[in-house]
Amino acid sequence: MPRRQWNPRRPGAASPRPDADARGRFRPKPRQGTRKPGDDRVVLYGWHPVKAALENPQRRIRSLLLTENAARRLTDEGLSLPAGAELVRPDVIAARLPADAVHQGLWAEADPLPAVDLDDLPADGIVLVLDQITDPHNVGAILRSAAAFGVSAVITTLRHSPEATGVLAKSASGALEFVPMIAVPNLARALEALKGRGFLLVGLDGGSPADLATVALRLPLGLVLGAEGKGMRQLTRATCHLTARLVLPGRLKTLNVSNATALALHVATSRLGSPRASAG
Amino acid sequence: MPRRQWNPRRPGAASPRPDADARGRFRPKPRQGTRKPGDDRVVLYGWHPVKAALENPQRRIRSLLLTENAARRLTDEGLSLPAGAELVRPDVIAARLPADAVHQGLWAEADPLPAVDLDDLPADGIVLVLDQITDPHNVGAILRSAAAFGVSAVITTLRHSPEATGVLAKSASGALEFVPMIAVPNLARALEALKGRGFLLVGLDGGSPADLATVALRLPLGLVLGAEGKGMRQLTRATCHLTARLVLPGRLKTLNVSNATALALHVATSRLGSPRASAG
Repeated sequence: MPRRQWNPRRPGAASPRPDADARGRFRPKPRQGTRKPGDDRVVLYGWHPVKAALENPQRRIRSLLLTENAARRLTDEGLSLPAGAELVRPDVIAARLPADAVHQGLWAEADPLPAVDLDDLPADGIVLVLDQITDPHNVGAILRSAAAFGVSAVITTLRHSPEATGVLAKSASGALEFVPMIAVPNLARALEALKGRGFLLVGLDGGSPADLATVALRLPLGLVLGAEGKGMRQLTRATCHLTARLVLPGRLKTLNVSNATALALHVATSRLGSPRASAG
Repeated sequence: MPRRQWNPRRPGAASPRPDADARGRFRPKPRQGTRKPGDDRVVLYGWHPVKAALENPQRRIRSLLLTENAARRLTDEGLSLPAGAELVRPDVIAARLPADAVHQGLWAEADPLPAVDLDDLPADGIVLVLDQITDPHNVGAILRSAAAFGVSAVITTLRHSPEATGVLAKSASGALEFVPMIAVPNLARALEALKGRGFLLVGLDGGSPADLATVALRLPLGLVLGAEGKGMRQLTRATCHLTARLVLPGRLKTLNVSNATALALHVATSRLGSPRASAG
């Protein structure tokens, strides 16, 4: 193993601080101006998230810790490691993460991806709009489905959404590198902007009389999803062109929000054909 | 509020111990004979899990803590509270649960549901078979989809599966009361038993050349799912009649396992018609 060229971790070298964001929880953003350089770094851990980040030319990795096994596996797959990558023991990585995190010998700190604007979205694609879905596992799984169904972007609210780091990145299994996340300060205004660009906005709502499998759909399409329990906020719902539900044959009439999203994407893409892939 | 008739919590009364199982993690089962009475109690918290348990005549609630608000909401919905229910402040419930648990003012300890045998399964239904899927959020979401698609039972391995308590019950959103979970010591043997009862066993596998949307299906059907990353174990796969994949149009070719299950259930029930509901 070419241990030397990767600048192995020296005993006594300063550790980057364990990052609270590793849990991926919502935390009020510091105001512009009070933000310190590096405050917006994202933490990526686990095989798929880190491998996909290393393969993404747009992702700037600031720091990479990895075990010898992980390094061998990456080089076996033809990846070259960035300068400054450090070989460490697994417990050095584990110490930076929640106790139940499955890191598979890989931990990286990186810059957020370049911001994508609503104006950059393709005119024949599908976007997902998440109205205050707070659980990072759910948003990560949604992002993963978005990448699997060729969605152009996932639009979230700047507040009450998890950040694109840690648990979310792990649950997304690399999808963070394939599907841009666009966090907007005002969701109703973003929906109006999508309308202005010709998007049909369909809010998913278990109480709607319309069936997503039979309602009129067309591209570009925005599928709008609310938080579990609460659903879409009133203004979000009112801004959609229409609402529709997934018809479920069993006793429970709702699904986990990421499961509902996967199903809605399957129904929509089956009916409309596969959309153009990511704008990112 | 009729506080007195519900035996409100007396200051100084002994608290049931906070249950480590509330996290729903796998933990080796004590051997038969060393198990203490009450060791197999399940913890249910949150609106849907506790409400569904109270509505289930087969579920024996041993202890119920709830806030005044939750009690009012339950009685507004026509539910009567069991003898011994205790009105408490929200922090009394929070103290028994992980820091991020959303309990909505309801916490119950209950007996497991009566065991269901493979022989009790309807001959025209769909079962899910989970091969060592360990994440309780995923298994809970799968159970919820199972209830939404009228699945007869969810079969898991006794080892390396989360128990039907805590996080799993919360993620299942009440589905634990609608779909029996059957934990078997030997999955291959259980699959053979299903075959003996006429089940077609289809293993979901992203590497399979066959498409679940076009492969020959019939009832009774067993959909077999492996853990994320690992997939089905070799013997599990070999015991299935066939494998099939979900065709995904985007760049990522895999989904979160609960999302894949929801999609597979949609495809199967759309093609076969809605199966007979739960055997429970």
